[in-house]
Amino acid sequence: MNKAEFNRLSRERVLYLDGATGSNLIKRGMPAGVCPEKWILDHREIMIGLQREYIEAGSNIIYAPTFTANRIKLKEYGLEKETRSMNRELIRLSLEAAEGRALVAADITMTGEQLAPMGTMDFETLISVYKEQITAVAQAGADLIVVETMMSLQESRAALIAAGEVCDLPVMVTMTFESDGKTLYGTDATTAAVVLESLGACAIGANCSTGPDKMMPIISEIAEAVSIPVIAKPNAGLPALNEHGETVYSMGEEDFVAGMQELIEAGASILGGCCGTSPSYIRALSDSCHGKEQMVRKEQLQKTDHRLPRRFLTSERKTLAFNLDSPFMIVGERINPTGKKKLQEELRSGSLSMVLDFAEEQEARGASLLDINVGMSGIDEKDMMLKILDEVTLASSLPLSLDSSHVDVLEAALRKYPGRALVNSVSAERVKLERLLPIVRKYGAMFILLPLSDEGLPANLDEKIALIEMIVQKASELGMRKEDIVVDGLVATIGANKNAGREVLETIRYCKENGLATICGLSNISFGLPERSFVNTAFLTMAIKEGLTMAIANPSQEMLVNAAFASDLLMNKEESDIRYIERMADYQARNPKVDPTLLRAAVSKTDQPARKEEKEQTGIL
Amino acid sequence: MNKAEFNRLSRERVLYLDGATGSNLIKRGMPAGVCPEKWILDHREIMIGLQREYIEAGSNIIYAPTFTANRIKLKEYGLEKETRSMNRELIRLSLEAAEGRALVAADITMTGEQLAPMGTMDFETLISVYKEQITAVAQAGADLIVVETMMSLQESRAALIAAGEVCDLPVMVTMTFESDGKTLYGTDATTAAVVLESLGACAIGANCSTGPDKMMPIISEIAEAVSIPVIAKPNAGLPALNEHGETVYSMGEEDFVAGMQELIEAGASILGGCCGTSPSYIRALSDSCHGKEQMVRKEQLQKTDHRLPRRFLTSERKTLAFNLDSPFMIVGERINPTGKKKLQEELRSGSLSMVLDFAEEQEARGASLLDINVGMSGIDEKDMMLKILDEVTLASSLPLSLDSSHVDVLEAALRKYPGRALVNSVSAERVKLERLLPIVRKYGAMFILLPLSDEGLPANLDEKIALIEMIVQKASELGMRKEDIVVDGLVATIGANKNAGREVLETIRYCKENGLATICGLSNISFGLPERSFVNTAFLTMAIKEGLTMAIANPSQEMLVNAAFASDLLMNKEESDIRYIERMADYQARNPKVDPTLLRAAVSKTDQPARKEEKEQTGIL
Ligand SMILES: [Zn+2]
Ligand SMILES: [Zn+2]
Ligand SMILES: [Zn+2]
Repeated sequence: MNKAEFNRLSRERVLYLDGATGSNLIKRGMPAGVCPEKWILDHREIMIGLQREYIEAGSNIIYAPTFTANRIKLKEYGLEKETRSMNRELIRLSLEAAEGRALVAADITMTGEQLAPMGTMDFETLISVYKEQITAVAQAGADLIVVETMMSLQESRAALIAAGEVCDLPVMVTMTFESDGKTLYGTDATTAAVVLESLGACAIGANCSTGPDKMMPIISEIAEAVSIPVIAKPNAGLPALNEHGETVYSMGEEDFVAGMQELIEAGASILGGCCGTSPSYIRALSDSCHGKEQMVRKEQLQKTDHRLPRRFLTSERKTLAFNLDSPFMIVGERINPTGKKKLQEELRSGSLSMVLDFAEEQEARGASLLDINVGMSGIDEKDMMLKILDEVTLASSLPLSLDSSHVDVLEAALRKYPGRALVNSVSAERVKLERLLPIVRKYGAMFILLPLSDEGLPANLDEKIALIEMIVQKASELGMRKEDIVVDGLVATIGANKNAGREVLETIRYCKENGLATICGLSNISFGLPERSFVNTAFLTMAIKEGLTMAIANPSQEMLVNAAFASDLLMNKEESDIRYIERMADYQARNPKVDPTLLRAAVSKTDQPARKEEKEQTGIL
Repeated sequence: MNKAEFNRLSRERVLYLDGATGSNLIKRGMPAGVCPEKWILDHREIMIGLQREYIEAGSNIIYAPTFTANRIKLKEYGLEKETRSMNRELIRLSLEAAEGRALVAADITMTGEQLAPMGTMDFETLISVYKEQITAVAQAGADLIVVETMMSLQESRAALIAAGEVCDLPVMVTMTFESDGKTLYGTDATTAAVVLESLGACAIGANCSTGPDKMMPIISEIAEAVSIPVIAKPNAGLPALNEHGETVYSMGEEDFVAGMQELIEAGASILGGCCGTSPSYIRALSDSCHGKEQMVRKEQLQKTDHRLPRRFLTSERKTLAFNLDSPFMIVGERINPTGKKKLQEELRSGSLSMVLDFAEEQEARGASLLDINVGMSGIDEKDMMLKILDEVTLASSLPLSLDSSHVDVLEAALRKYPGRALVNSVSAERVKLERLLPIVRKYGAMFILLPLSDEGLPANLDEKIALIEMIVQKASELGMRKEDIVVDGLVATIGANKNAGREVLETIRYCKENGLATICGLSNISFGLPERSFVNTAFLTMAIKEGLTMAIANPSQEMLVNAAFASDLLMNKEESDIRYIERMADYQARNPKVDPTLLRAAVSKTDQPARKEEKEQTGIL
């Protein structure tokens, strides 16, 4: 089955998965402490029998017993060299059980070894572990892949990347969430869903974790965020120990099914059971929906299709969701060595302390994203970018804008970045369209569309719009949507083009009317003028009026940021009044009223700014 | 002849006036030192003979010899009681000379006594002097009135007001300008032309002053400013004394006519001669245009009709001209006792020193107009308004916005104000439409259209626009144009209506698209919010983006005013780059850079503003 076939099928109807495997095998004689995969291959008929029971009960997709058949887990039993052959055999077993009456999903999960920097495993090593297993299951004829019981978003990404690089099988991913609604590594359900959908998962959801009742908020969150089918495969309630010291689950078939109905209401359309469930749960579940599988799915899709289009950017732990009328956002511009001698020196010496300070400060001052640019001489830009990603993603929970003029730097950063990044930027230059855009698509990032080409800047607004439309079209041909794009207004300098301001404002208006988010660098507009912050601030205010979505700026510029909050208020954006009042409370706390008499005494004799290198405006002047 | 007939005639063709009277009478025997009017009545046949020569030479309009036949001048000869009868006789004389072959203009000029406060004559007394003379000439059958050789705009206004109140005769006005292009009292030609046209003059121009060559810039200025015919009646060059000690003029007929052709090119269409000219000059002039009178006039009118519509407001000495794309303007709001206890006390005590300080300060800080409001308890508002007009018009050359809720106060102020004022304001309330609007029309003022009615505020944008259209229609029925109107956007408070900002911005956009200038009070938008200047500034910036023409504000608010200059720059208004740079130089001179280290020491412990009464923001916060 390829992805397109899976998408068609999963849009047509509600699908049933199977229930628990391990606990049912134990009941059927599998002893503790053995390698499950080995035992199964030694007791093929027991596994085949269980799977046929699931199919009889209604399962449309059964999970092949390859759950821990990765090289690292098998090594615990000295079986790592059998990885390929065992996976092949296990898939064949399930195909035999299915007899074409159900799809066989190769089952993948975590290896048990942590990724660096917390553990010692390298990200590329993990990808290669998954590639080995997935190559085998694909060769053996698995219909699709399910990556399940994942507690780490980054390990899920590794599995998805691996799958995409060795086969075209559809990949479903389900993660396991703690009672706080986050994974063990702190990722919330929305963030997981956004990242995995954009990276190419064909269905996304939760398994294990809890009973269906407690899974409700997670499934809701995921269903709100994604367009692909949502998977719910909860446990049969909460675990407890019975009088024999065995783990048992609290929820009977009836309550389980009632809970599953709620999850279907919330948007889940691929349904199964995890720990504590058995073929009878799946039977009860499929009976409860019997004959309504297509109607239910149709209603779900109607809801999904009528949502206001939203855009999502994420770090590993947090999602920034926005639409074209959302509060204005600032992309913190400070992590960029251009023109900053001190930062350059630090980076050359290998120190990231300024970078981390800038990250924390910009987050504290209200940045919604951080731009990361390490383009400078005397360092290996790719190495530095990856190093900074490791550190900044720990220091700040903000999503990142990955900013480089080198395609290979962006490729390495996108592969490694554990969230959904904004790529800065894709122009109509040939190398960007032909090399970078497919990479952006592969890693599911959003990108900043820069309307310039190998011929240089557009000569006028018509040319600019033609470039925008051309790049949007190219992205569309690769399967990307308008919601994946943020158009750079391409701000010229008033000193060089008196109409620079109006042209950008018209570009923003055009984009907003055509469903495209926008971004601007502000300061270029005022290059060469005195007291530039007044021009930048007025420009930002007008741009927000015209619909500007975000700007690259220093969030410590009080006047600029206050103007943005006031502009949102005037545009009557959601909660903009509360946000303005809160911002002003922060502002007042940072800027106690100055007694003008004392102020006069504080005026220095010199008219020159004290610092020359970093010309960043930190005050309101 | 009524005004409509004159307008028709003067649009049809170039018209010829006569030439000098006095010097030609002297040549024909009038001795020095006599009362000219008396001598003429005693030598009717000489005057009739001269006038017939002018008609033979081509004059379409002859000036009756009533030039100094006002009560004050006649008193010098003890003839003040003969004013009415002498004027009647003098008109009859000219009618007899004309024999229906030319129109007879009753000639009016200055009395020789200065108006208060420079002289002792009261404005209303002067009006009554002119009324007496004009009543007589109208009764005697003069076809029109010419007010000529005027050196004072205010005295010209008195004559125009007098004429309008006693007859429906068309009134032409020509002023005399010094070599600096201004009248003796400092009024430039544009200002004179704007004020007199708006007050109902049917033609306006210059007489005496210089030869036609030197009159060129004055005629150009006037022609640029008005839609009515432009009069040029220059001297025959410069005066000099000949060997007999007599005044002679330097320019012969040929040069005079060549100069007049240039004035016709510049837009003059009612042409004659003043000192030093004679029937032969008028003959040469009329010969030079012979047969082309209609074609020339048609070409002039085509130019006039294709001008971009401009709006004009003036003081007695200065004109503020603007169109819908002009630099943004601030109407200084500070001369208003509302909420200002100290100003109230001063005004009650009869002191105008704060008012004058506010006037000078606001002009220095870049206000384009000054709003004058003296609405408060405990004073006679009308008296105070007139008193302030006398003083403020001396202290500042800015045009005024006359601001009162009382029709009688506005009526008295408009009558007295020696320029073209902006009336604040005309709403759709019955008393405003029925009583105030005709008064605004009579005195030729512009007005602020306030879109509210006796039913209160409009409930939504549609109602607001309906009110605007209704008031525009009423004004149009009285003969006013869109260019006479500035629409108040009617700013509500965001705290009460979250959409307040957007609604005003849409109102401004509507007005701009429909050829209406706009004004806003800014501060209402932010009522009840913290750090209101950020909201006010962002609002102003957006409003300028949408086309706001002017705002009522305190020009000492640095951030607000700087934002306005930056906004004009971004909108690429004419010379906005130079204006921004100059403004920033001023700003930097007022606000030397502050050393942040010293600033921290200057922060006062209290968060409360020091002054409570006057909550005007003078700093950039
Ligand atoms: Zn489970
Ligand atoms: Zn399980
Ligand atoms: Zn003269």
